[in-house]
Amino acid sequence: MTTDHLVIFTPSGKRGRFPAGTPVLHAARQLGVDLDSVCGGRGICSKCQITPSYGEFPKHGVTVEATALTEWNSVEERYKSKRGMIDGRRLGCQAKVTGDVVIDVPPESQVHRQVVRKAATLRAITMDPATRLYFIEVRQPDMEEPTGDLERIAEALREQWQVEAVRADVSVLAKLQPVLRKGQWQITVALFQDHRGDSPRIVEVWPGLHEAGLYGLAIDLGSTTIAAHLCDLTNGEVKASSGVMNPQIRFGEDLMSRVSYAMMNPNGAAEMTKAVRLAINGLAQTLATEGNVEPDLILETVIVCNPVMHHLLLGIDPVELGQAPFALATSSSLSLNASELELTELNPRARAYILPCIAGHVGADAAAVALSEEPNKSKDLALIVDVGTNAEILLGNVEKVLACSSPTGPAFEGAQISSGQRAAPGAIERIEIDPVTKEPRFRIIGVDAWSDEAGFAEHAGATGISGICGSGIIEAVAEMRMAGIVDASGLIGSADQVGTARCIPEGRTHAYVIFDGRSDGGPLISVTQGDIRAIQLAKSALYAGARLLMDELKVEKVDRVVLAGAFGAHISPKHAMVLGMIPDVPLEKVTSAGNAAGTGARIALLNRSSRGEIEAIVHQIKKVETAIEPRFQEHFVNASAIPNSVEPFPELAKVVTLPDVSFNTKGDREGGRRRRG
Amino acid sequence: MTTDHLVIFTPSGKRGRFPAGTPVLHAARQLGVDLDSVCGGRGICSKCQITPSYGEFPKHGVTVEATALTEWNSVEERYKSKRGMIDGRRLGCQAKVTGDVVIDVPPESQVHRQVVRKAATLRAITMDPATRLYFIEVRQPDMEEPTGDLERIAEALREQWQVEAVRADVSVLAKLQPVLRKGQWQITVALFQDHRGDSPRIVEVWPGLHEAGLYGLAIDLGSTTIAAHLCDLTNGEVKASSGVMNPQIRFGEDLMSRVSYAMMNPNGAAEMTKAVRLAINGLAQTLATEGNVEPDLILETVIVCNPVMHHLLLGIDPVELGQAPFALATSSSLSLNASELELTELNPRARAYILPCIAGHVGADAAAVALSEEPNKSKDLALIVDVGTNAEILLGNVEKVLACSSPTGPAFEGAQISSGQRAAPGAIERIEIDPVTKEPRFRIIGVDAWSDEAGFAEHAGATGISGICGSGIIEAVAEMRMAGIVDASGLIGSADQVGTARCIPEGRTHAYVIFDGRSDGGPLISVTQGDIRAIQLAKSALYAGARLLMDELKVEKVDRVVLAGAFGAHISPKHAMVLGMIPDVPLEKVTSAGNAAGTGARIALLNRSSRGEIEAIVHQIKKVETAIEPRFQEHFVNASAIPNSVEPFPELAKVVTLPDVSFNTKGDREGGRRRRG
Repeated sequence: MTTDHLVIFTPSGKRGRFPAGTPVLHAARQLGVDLDSVCGGRGICSKCQITPSYGEFPKHGVTVEATALTEWNSVEERYKSKRGMIDGRRLGCQAKVTGDVVIDVPPESQVHRQVVRKAATLRAITMDPATRLYFIEVRQPDMEEPTGDLERIAEALREQWQVEAVRADVSVLAKLQPVLRKGQWQITVALFQDHRGDSPRIVEVWPGLHEAGLYGLAIDLGSTTIAAHLCDLTNGEVKASSGVMNPQIRFGEDLMSRVSYAMMNPNGAAEMTKAVRLAINGLAQTLATEGNVEPDLILETVIVCNPVMHHLLLGIDPVELGQAPFALATSSSLSLNASELELTELNPRARAYILPCIAGHVGADAAAVALSEEPNKSKDLALIVDVGTNAEILLGNVEKVLACSSPTGPAFEGAQISSGQRAAPGAIERIEIDPVTKEPRFRIIGVDAWSDEAGFAEHAGATGISGICGSGIIEAVAEMRMAGIVDASGLIGSADQVGTARCIPEGRTHAYVIFDGRSDGGPLISVTQGDIRAIQLAKSALYAGARLLMDELKVEKVDRVVLAGAFGAHISPKHAMVLGMIPDVPLEKVTSAGNAAGTGARIALLNRSSRGEIEAIVHQIKKVETAIEPRFQEHFVNASAIPNSVEPFPELAKVVTLPDVSFNTKGDREGGRRRRG
Repeated sequence: MTTDHLVIFTPSGKRGRFPAGTPVLHAARQLGVDLDSVCGGRGICSKCQITPSYGEFPKHGVTVEATALTEWNSVEERYKSKRGMIDGRRLGCQAKVTGDVVIDVPPESQVHRQVVRKAATLRAITMDPATRLYFIEVRQPDMEEPTGDLERIAEALREQWQVEAVRADVSVLAKLQPVLRKGQWQITVALFQDHRGDSPRIVEVWPGLHEAGLYGLAIDLGSTTIAAHLCDLTNGEVKASSGVMNPQIRFGEDLMSRVSYAMMNPNGAAEMTKAVRLAINGLAQTLATEGNVEPDLILETVIVCNPVMHHLLLGIDPVELGQAPFALATSSSLSLNASELELTELNPRARAYILPCIAGHVGADAAAVALSEEPNKSKDLALIVDVGTNAEILLGNVEKVLACSSPTGPAFEGAQISSGQRAAPGAIERIEIDPVTKEPRFRIIGVDAWSDEAGFAEHAGATGISGICGSGIIEAVAEMRMAGIVDASGLIGSADQVGTARCIPEGRTHAYVIFDGRSDGGPLISVTQGDIRAIQLAKSALYAGARLLMDELKVEKVDRVVLAGAFGAHISPKHAMVLGMIPDVPLEKVTSAGNAAGTGARIALLNRSSRGEIEAIVHQIKKVETAIEPRFQEHFVNASAIPNSVEPFPELAKVVTLPDVSFNTKGDREGGRRRRG
């Protein structure tokens, strides 16, 4: 009979017998229990905290005595007094087994702990970043065995962490010697381990135990907006999120105008490349400041974007994307040094990963949406629309996934809208219009109260309301239609026709005033006839894209719809359906996924193996080209109206009534031109 | 019985049977015959030229009819009329087998052709460069199968050349699309294939068939001199060779002074890094101009250097190399982008390979000497000395190889010598002194005639003679000793003592005038007492290093000596032995290897697998540290004299008589201080 003690780990349930004196960390490693440690059991990193349980465990068939582990020791005491530790916790490397014991590994001590990625869906990301920290003790140089410092670091990583064949850039080599000596041969290295199986690469070194963390930047580079999250690569926490306008807008509002700019101007593509790289640098700086993170600790970035943004970011002339067959320079994912993209506000050795593109008009952003929303794992037929200046549309289920891109223009991001703005504090994001009084109430980003509620004025005031963001304009137009301010053709009625002074003349058409702060030095915020036309164009393009995929799959309806978009606030399913942005579907089957492309970027940042996953998935997604498809034009033209009745949308009839109004003004004759962007 | 025809290739002797109509290139490929082709058999590169032989071949048992190959065709005719082709040659991709045939593959059509690497030893380098050209036809983009241009290039390389998993930098991606379209989907790619098995990397692309070649730079970066060869990577030809002084000399003449400079000045190491990179860029420019090669066609460089130069080139502070245990930041070879070393005068994507170091004082230059001179393959016990500002010394045979580095100082490179200069046109490289008249005759670099021969004056004249180079000063001192101008202790006698007016007072000592061109506006070239002392220090250090290795191996004599050095002209074995630079050995057993380190660099440049070879060899070389070895000091002090008799050197007695002279001057008391560098 063995004298070894039974050690049971929860929540994994892994168990084994170990001799008295075995450190808990060691037992965990032997059993393959997911227990973190950066220092390799030297009692300095405190990542291996565990909670022993005492008492009777009939389920496990053991009784744990209070003496099942060695006593609280001085290393633990020093750590607790300096940094604090939850009562009942022990350091797994210090506590040694002296009897049968049940040990719980709390989530924060698991290497592959899961991070809830958004409240709405409660899906989780398993932490498995490509860049990780390793604390090592390095053998000192010996004249008799003349190996270099790098070679002895490689040896330490091999022996202490089973990491083979590491490499280091010249700039790391230049740091090695002073860092090793400062750390007295104990250092922490940040190791980048590619999912493609390339040799691990030392990207940073610090003397002793590095405790200031490791960060990464997930960037969703859109035509109109660049949004980014600064994430902690050790625990997945989002330290800061921010967005800026894409400065390329000055070269053209939609993608095709930018391609044209590149074609017409000898240095056009290079100018746009420079502009977007500068903007990303500025955004990185903002996030580092907001998150209180040293830029040198940002060691990775993952970027998702559409093909034109992709080429311009990489410094590739996008001219081929402007004409059939829309050939990409490369459709594969890219793993490169961030410095090659002139991203200077990160660690100089930071790595960049760019998701693969699906096709000439369906880019890494669509791939990111697929990674985040997983249509390929859906049993239902899911329609996923990621609304931006280009809408990325995915339709499919476990059997087949189709994708296309539709040129909605920047209206959904608040651009090309008279009072439009990026989703930022002060922007109107929600709106309701009383169908009787035609009076609006609204909510702005940054203030919880509605505009007619107590406390709104004190938080916002006239000057705190700055414009309407993308989700706001969608609600505004839908509410105007439901309140009878706009007719099915999209015309805004006059004050007389509608019966409210909020309908004011605007040239030969009318505008609806949502907020007039001019007397207090604030803005006049209204929805003009031009705004309605822009939204009509955008929603027609979106709807036409979705229909095209449905045609391709030979289906008349989908099981569920996921609305995503980079513009911060969530799109209201009801309003999207009133506008006719999406095909008819039970309202409860419409979910809002926030910035799905950004989430996809975050998944690829935090989980290395997801990179291989999406690289495989993009090959299974069939791309449908909207640009040369006559049926797209057909659907587009037919979708221009805002539903004039709920009849073709039985599901819509359950939630709204659309008034049967019709206005005529001489000023607005055009239905809207088609635009790619 | 088969109707296939017998095809026999010479010189390989490989043979096989092929159906009528098989192109010769195809047959060669099937049999693994080493027949070059860049265009893959499309009749445009003409690399696959072969010579069919007709008539009876009793040895091979075949008779070859004149009709054994298809007739000379229009592709061949066009090539011959445009570019010329030796009579009797055929293009292997055009000529098809129609009967039994014997086909000779001339050396220039072999991929792995050998390049004679120097006249002296007639050893050859097998061509197997890491960077090679591939002509491919790329599938055009298709909207139905939306892959990127890079992916279709990868497919072409896989299908047409069996090269898998290629990668490309962002800067290549930016060129792909215009180049593919300009070449109408036929392009040539330059592919870098690492000897470590990393994914092949596209480093350059050209439309159509690229015929302007591919070049590499082999650089021997010494403390005093930087020498480089510009080599054709397709045939191994040296297009240009040149050298410059290492501008770091202004920071310190020897290695330890440069380490001190780095220690004493906050930005010292960085200054020296910048200086040497600039110098290499200047040298690259000179070579490109001399060789008439576009810098963009230089796609590789191989660099060898001692550890201090190595660290300074890489931008690593060499401070650790100035103190025991002399730890290198890395001892491994390095494969990196030349741009990381700020080498701007090559293709921006050129790769750099730096040979591994053996130890803290025995660098990549010693490794290069080992690669070139192969002591590890020698049955005899070979002593190899590579003379520079530091001498790299190797001693060994197939069983064991030892190495050390000895701080000879820059005297052997003509520095620290009053009339010294780098080996360049105008430098005295050979000298003879008549033992009776004490009159000298000499030869300068760039002129074939000796100074007392007809035609010398017209080619050189007074102003064409500029100084003495390293090999010249060695001969001068040895000849002065043999002519009785210098005694065994190293003192130069006065005019009276020696009996020639060429011995002139120089302060409190004397100098020997070799050439006085002052009346014609030329220089006074003499050997001063200080010069003799510098040479004595240098040769003592060299000798002491060699002796130390012999002690370590417990041998009293070596079988052969190889003299190598970066200073261009070869060292005269006789003079080296008179000086006491090397241990006694039969004179015919002393060979001169020219710039062995440079040759090693060239081998690594032209033959990829030699990189793996030297990486393995350095681990088998045992390093002996001179800096802290008391016996080195002992040998050094004992070696200070210039042999005062031939007695301890029986082999020397066969070739020279050393006069038994002794001078006394009050001015020269010091035997010489030891210096590391």
